[in-house]
Amino acid sequence: MKIDGTAYRSIWPGADGKSASIIDQTRLPHEFVTVDLGTLEDAATAIRDMWVRGAPLIGATAAYGMAIALTRDASDAALENAHETLIATRPTAINLKWALDAAAAHLRPLAREERAAAAWRFAADLCDGDVAVNHAIGQHGLAVIREIAARKPAGERVNILTHCNAGWLATVDWGTATSPIYQAHDAGLAVHVFVDETRPRNQGAGLTAWELGRHGVPHTLVVDNAGGHLMQHGAVDMVIVGTDRTTARGDVCNKIGTYLKALAAKDNGVPFYVALPSSTIDWTVSDGLREIPIEERSAEEVTWVHGKRADGTLDKVLITPQTTPAANPAFDVTPARLVTGLITERGVCAASAEGLAALFPERAPA
Amino acid sequence: MKIDGTAYRSIWPGADGKSASIIDQTRLPHEFVTVDLGTLEDAATAIRDMWVRGAPLIGATAAYGMAIALTRDASDAALENAHETLIATRPTAINLKWALDAAAAHLRPLAREERAAAAWRFAADLCDGDVAVNHAIGQHGLAVIREIAARKPAGERVNILTHCNAGWLATVDWGTATSPIYQAHDAGLAVHVFVDETRPRNQGAGLTAWELGRHGVPHTLVVDNAGGHLMQHGAVDMVIVGTDRTTARGDVCNKIGTYLKALAAKDNGVPFYVALPSSTIDWTVSDGLREIPIEERSAEEVTWVHGKRADGTLDKVLITPQTTPAANPAFDVTPARLVTGLITERGVCAASAEGLAALFPERAPA
Repeated sequence: MKIDGTAYRSIWPGADGKSASIIDQTRLPHEFVTVDLGTLEDAATAIRDMWVRGAPLIGATAAYGMAIALTRDASDAALENAHETLIATRPTAINLKWALDAAAAHLRPLAREERAAAAWRFAADLCDGDVAVNHAIGQHGLAVIREIAARKPAGERVNILTHCNAGWLATVDWGTATSPIYQAHDAGLAVHVFVDETRPRNQGAGLTAWELGRHGVPHTLVVDNAGGHLMQHGAVDMVIVGTDRTTARGDVCNKIGTYLKALAAKDNGVPFYVALPSSTIDWTVSDGLREIPIEERSAEEVTWVHGKRADGTLDKVLITPQTTPAANPAFDVTPARLVTGLITERGVCAASAEGLAALFPERAPA
Repeated sequence: MKIDGTAYRSIWPGADGKSASIIDQTRLPHEFVTVDLGTLEDAATAIRDMWVRGAPLIGATAAYGMAIALTRDASDAALENAHETLIATRPTAINLKWALDAAAAHLRPLAREERAAAAWRFAADLCDGDVAVNHAIGQHGLAVIREIAARKPAGERVNILTHCNAGWLATVDWGTATSPIYQAHDAGLAVHVFVDETRPRNQGAGLTAWELGRHGVPHTLVVDNAGGHLMQHGAVDMVIVGTDRTTARGDVCNKIGTYLKALAAKDNGVPFYVALPSSTIDWTVSDGLREIPIEERSAEEVTWVHGKRADGTLDKVLITPQTTPAANPAFDVTPARLVTGLITERGVCAASAEGLAALFPERAPA
């Protein structure tokens, strides 16, 4: 998407044919800094230290890391070393493992002198594939927004609430939840986004607000507590969120707090949509609440808040007594009964086993 | 309640008979500082600059401010000046106006030489009255906690979720939502409190966590997003919150985000209680959602977070891009249908016109 008028992806190959560039997302929203990844270790650091985040972007960075490594040394040993080094950066990231296993399987059979070029092509194709999927999600979501816009009085903007950052920064481009929003905005539809700040890591306040603002999409930040009140007063026309994992019956595991917004949407008759590439569907899991273990993250994410001081320096502040214990579950599960529809790259379906099976007959459990 | 073993109220008269003392709550939870209010202007500053907050405590501080003023000068002019000065500190605080009007009406007819002593008695009685009401709320709430404890396996603690700070710091002592919790804890019942941090002003993280910790009540801080997930997994046995304003049919206007917790409680069969002194019931209002205007506060409360840096200095950090617009509705309305019961100083009743009328027959609309 655009940053102040210039089109960007979240990762791109360098003109030198030996490096790739990313945005250091740990410095957003306060500083916009791009970083050239010139070595395998650079790519590993970018993933490990979360300069890049979001499953698709992590996978893409790993693929470029492989290409960067093989450009210097295309031996079997170098290939296996790159595979191992990159996988170890985020041991629980499924998408990372998937991308690296696929890249290695593709590259191993090739002659040494072909590997580097093939690795660059593989990474570029992976990125283009992600962009195409997200674009398709946006097209299907755009149709939903158009329908809602058509039911509103002429001239009134469509108000969309979103949670966390399922934006282009988490993917290669477009994002998932944001893709319909960007496409509506770019098509000239009047949209306005309520951005949940998304405690504890504030990805809404830091990343979603930043990317919407830079692209020029009207938006308003609210605390996570505010969404229910806004819906009670008719200020929200629809909710669109992303998902980390979707079950075969349409339960949605997403950033903590998503479930509360789904409840409020249901209570107020506000359509609640989840945008997802089908790669996030876990066909082996049905009951999300019972079957998906929820990651518990560190208490410090809750008790310390990062930001920029008035003098421009980045710092963090403690918001509790020094010894307050905190719990930090990172995700929650929104049951399918609260989800109006799943927006996938193949179209929109009901959040149900039947809905998903109709769109993905080749994958659905018998 | 206790602070590290020593019993405190949130305001108390000085031994010199000329001053009153408070805790500077703007410095909590990072610094515990008491302040002597020796002049009318001190008392006005304490209210205006929110060293004290919470309707009952503001009223009590104003009453002591009147006594402090009349101790220096008990003339009619001084009385009217104190009344005017103190009312102007928080123009929209109903309880402040009520306390000052009552104090002035009580003191005006008295002879000049009687006024100071009467003003000190008035303030002390006001405080004792608040403490008695909150203690009674706690007794009735304790019975509810005991019932829930009795249904749990022996030895398992009762997990109570609360939002914002309806604690003793907001009142003279006991608090409202916290009063049943303190009384259960003091009675030896095993209770544990999940404390919502309560963005944007973080009264849960800063005040509720502080007072529970200092009194010795086991608790865990969570972000406002986490409560639904906790309830889905059976981690919460009951919710108790306070209220700023309760309608004649039992709708509850409380800190933003309360409604979301009520929805989650309903969805998971978790009892949702609201603790309130009957002074917060507005018998002239029925439909809270339509009739209660919601205060919109400054965007800076959302975009800047206050806390303590690692070096111990107090500061604030910006969590958004510099220009991000934010909305900041301060309260929301929880419809009576989501409330299991209202815990008042006269007992527990259904959140309905009938329930309230049965407890307060003399006040209920015909």
